[in-house]
Amino acid sequence: MSILSGIHPVAEALRSHHPLDRVLVAQGAGGPRLQEIIDLARRAAVTVRFEPRAALDRLAGTPAHQGVVALGAATKYAGVEEVAAAEMVVVLDGVEDPHNLGAIIRTAYAAGAGGVIIPERRAAGVTDVVAKAAAGALEHLPVTRVVNVNRMLEDLKRSGHWIYGLDERGTEDYDRVEYSTPTVLVLGGEGKGLHEQVRKHCDVLVRIPVAGKIASLNVSVAAGIVLFEWRRRRLKG
Amino acid sequence: MSILSGIHPVAEALRSHHPLDRVLVAQGAGGPRLQEIIDLARRAAVTVRFEPRAALDRLAGTPAHQGVVALGAATKYAGVEEVAAAEMVVVLDGVEDPHNLGAIIRTAYAAGAGGVIIPERRAAGVTDVVAKAAAGALEHLPVTRVVNVNRMLEDLKRSGHWIYGLDERGTEDYDRVEYSTPTVLVLGGEGKGLHEQVRKHCDVLVRIPVAGKIASLNVSVAAGIVLFEWRRRRLKG
Repeated sequence: MSILSGIHPVAEALRSHHPLDRVLVAQGAGGPRLQEIIDLARRAAVTVRFEPRAALDRLAGTPAHQGVVALGAATKYAGVEEVAAAEMVVVLDGVEDPHNLGAIIRTAYAAGAGGVIIPERRAAGVTDVVAKAAAGALEHLPVTRVVNVNRMLEDLKRSGHWIYGLDERGTEDYDRVEYSTPTVLVLGGEGKGLHEQVRKHCDVLVRIPVAGKIASLNVSVAAGIVLFEWRRRRLKG
Repeated sequence: MSILSGIHPVAEALRSHHPLDRVLVAQGAGGPRLQEIIDLARRAAVTVRFEPRAALDRLAGTPAHQGVVALGAATKYAGVEEVAAAEMVVVLDGVEDPHNLGAIIRTAYAAGAGGVIIPERRAAGVTDVVAKAAAGALEHLPVTRVVNVNRMLEDLKRSGHWIYGLDERGTEDYDRVEYSTPTVLVLGGEGKGLHEQVRKHCDVLVRIPVAGKIASLNVSVAAGIVLFEWRRRRLKG
């Protein structure tokens, strides 16, 4: 992953729409030029995080970063149209752990899904950790970022997709529901499930019935179980 | 001393009366799920202390503790007999990543497996990282360590178990093979698959057919796909 530091390089990268995963600003740093970077980042939908100065020192490899460091994206994101044309689209509603994001991309590709959609904010972007966990799948499977997941789901519905949300409170078992084509599978963030608005956009809420009362599943494992059930039926039918 | 962190693992440890020394809550943290943990701790007569977030970061080794850390005793491994009596036993042949081990334990419990067997050497043991990734399942699912996986498989065969090894070179598709009871599912280490000797001890070598030539699966995701196919058939039959 490329790392830029200093006010001028980071501002230039933002102005020229260089693909950036996030901008880190040192806690307590300020001034009009830093504020301008924050504004540029927000306009470009690049995540801004405030971190201790020591974290920036470590990333930049020097304390001479003027309070700002930018992390380049490990991949170019695909266009929304490319992803939406697929028979199976996986939409992630706030997956934050990069290992999970990478494992889901890897699993989606192995199951024959055609694309993954992730939100630009409050979610992991495609970093080197994600690329490593994806084990090469990022080279083949288009991944796109959208500002508004709800609007994306509305667009997908209009283009004929059926939206299946995986949720602990789902009413249909994942292995009994019929999957209409083209299919969208929406997965929530770790330990939080789907956002209320996202849930309302789903045509069907499915659940994975588990043994034991406390049992729950890691989101990437849950993705694998549903995606391979979809694949099993598709190959059979 | 074992350290648990995160809302789900700490709540589960309290609910299952895992011996805990104290529960630390980050100053300023709140919400209904944290309040539930505080109530559970008070009912179980476990001390609750409010500490600066930085103290929790340090103990948990990560800032991703959701505002709660519990200090307790290390996991006791179960006896081999207890594990071997189960209808489905998961045997891990050299899983090294603690996140994967934890996710597999969590998944095995959710699928209704009765125990997990791990080797003592060249494999992850049950550490705090594993306990956290297992999200409470360690409180319920017996996990045992054996010196020699091959000898363990011979013992299981003699007691009537059928041994299914998951392997990329498997000859049977996981969703077409018949699973005889009691069942043993053997999974290999990350990127290495089953050891040659272990493969020879398997009655059946199954594979998960994937889309795309380069596609492969994370071992915990693969475990979920096979275990939930076994569960789906078991519930249906």
